[in-house]
Amino acid sequence: MYNFNNSKKFALIKKDKSNKQSWDRKIIKLCNKINSKDDYFTTSSCSGRIVLLKDEKKKKPGLFLFRTHEKITFSQLKKELQKASSKVKRGMVIFKQEPCLLSVSSRNKESQWQLFNKARNNGWKKSGILSIDRKFLVELISTENISFPVIKDENILVNDNFLKIIIKKANYNLDSCWKKIDILFCLIK
Amino acid sequence: MYNFNNSKKFALIKKDKSNKQSWDRKIIKLCNKINSKDDYFTTSSCSGRIVLLKDEKKKKPGLFLFRTHEKITFSQLKKELQKASSKVKRGMVIFKQEPCLLSVSSRNKESQWQLFNKARNNGWKKSGILSIDRKFLVELISTENISFPVIKDENILVNDNFLKIIIKKANYNLDSCWKKIDILFCLIK
Repeated sequence: MYNFNNSKKFALIKKDKSNKQSWDRKIIKLCNKINSKDDYFTTSSCSGRIVLLKDEKKKKPGLFLFRTHEKITFSQLKKELQKASSKVKRGMVIFKQEPCLLSVSSRNKESQWQLFNKARNNGWKKSGILSIDRKFLVELISTENISFPVIKDENILVNDNFLKIIIKKANYNLDSCWKKIDILFCLIK
Repeated sequence: MYNFNNSKKFALIKKDKSNKQSWDRKIIKLCNKINSKDDYFTTSSCSGRIVLLKDEKKKKPGLFLFRTHEKITFSQLKKELQKASSKVKRGMVIFKQEPCLLSVSSRNKESQWQLFNKARNNGWKKSGILSIDRKFLVELISTENISFPVIKDENILVNDNFLKIIIKKANYNLDSCWKKIDILFCLIK
């Protein structure tokens, strides 16, 4: 039979399965606070990120060509685009800025609903409940998002002026994610 | 007290509040099938769309400069970009291709869970449960997505080659949405 306390203990000591094997700097405090509460434990988290990935239908190893949870500079992106274009001879590479995300297991329906509601009403507007018994999973997701093909058959498709506008917007979006993380941190009592 | 049957009756006769005032061609059949079932009624739907909108933090009237639920051609997009750039003298215009979406109210926890599960396991991977009593709302959302700034201060930021690649991908994404709509239609018995 499913036991919340045991699952929580196990989740918090087991090996981090992410490629990075650590929590993102900007979301550690929030994860720790949630995990300090009797009724919750986090199962996955991301503080928002900027990535370059191959345009493939199925997830395969080597999908990601670049991944950061920090703001980027023009020279950094330019370098990563050049690396990516030399690696992907055929097909497209996608630039993505993705929002902050937090998956949480809750003790019961009431604690699940409380957390979901707090998040959804404070900027985490793509949040949803993923299971209504046992693990009482909730996925908290914010809205910041950029996504477009940036390389095709080795060629970078956009000019430097466009890249600078994208970088400004992507960095602004990460800031917006971090603010929402801070607000949720304050709202969890 | 909340009554599912009355709410359903009212929802299906009331005036369509969308700008378009009708269901999208590609999702009508699915909406009708869901509404023909005793346990469900749809509250909102979109078959996937391509839009141009002002880059504003708050939703205001006039946000959308162009909106279609059909595939687009190069000459059509070019014309709409020219119109948009002459309308928005300062600030940015965003190009978006957004996935299909369906909001459904369910009679109870069991019927809600059934629909959510069917959708989430068949390509509607951004789906979530939004309420766990009374209306038992579920939001079914797919994954296809493009989003980037396309105009800044009257200037179109990308060249025609890039626009052609975007159009091909956006149209392909709409096809993918329509397939998922058809699959869900078949799965609802």
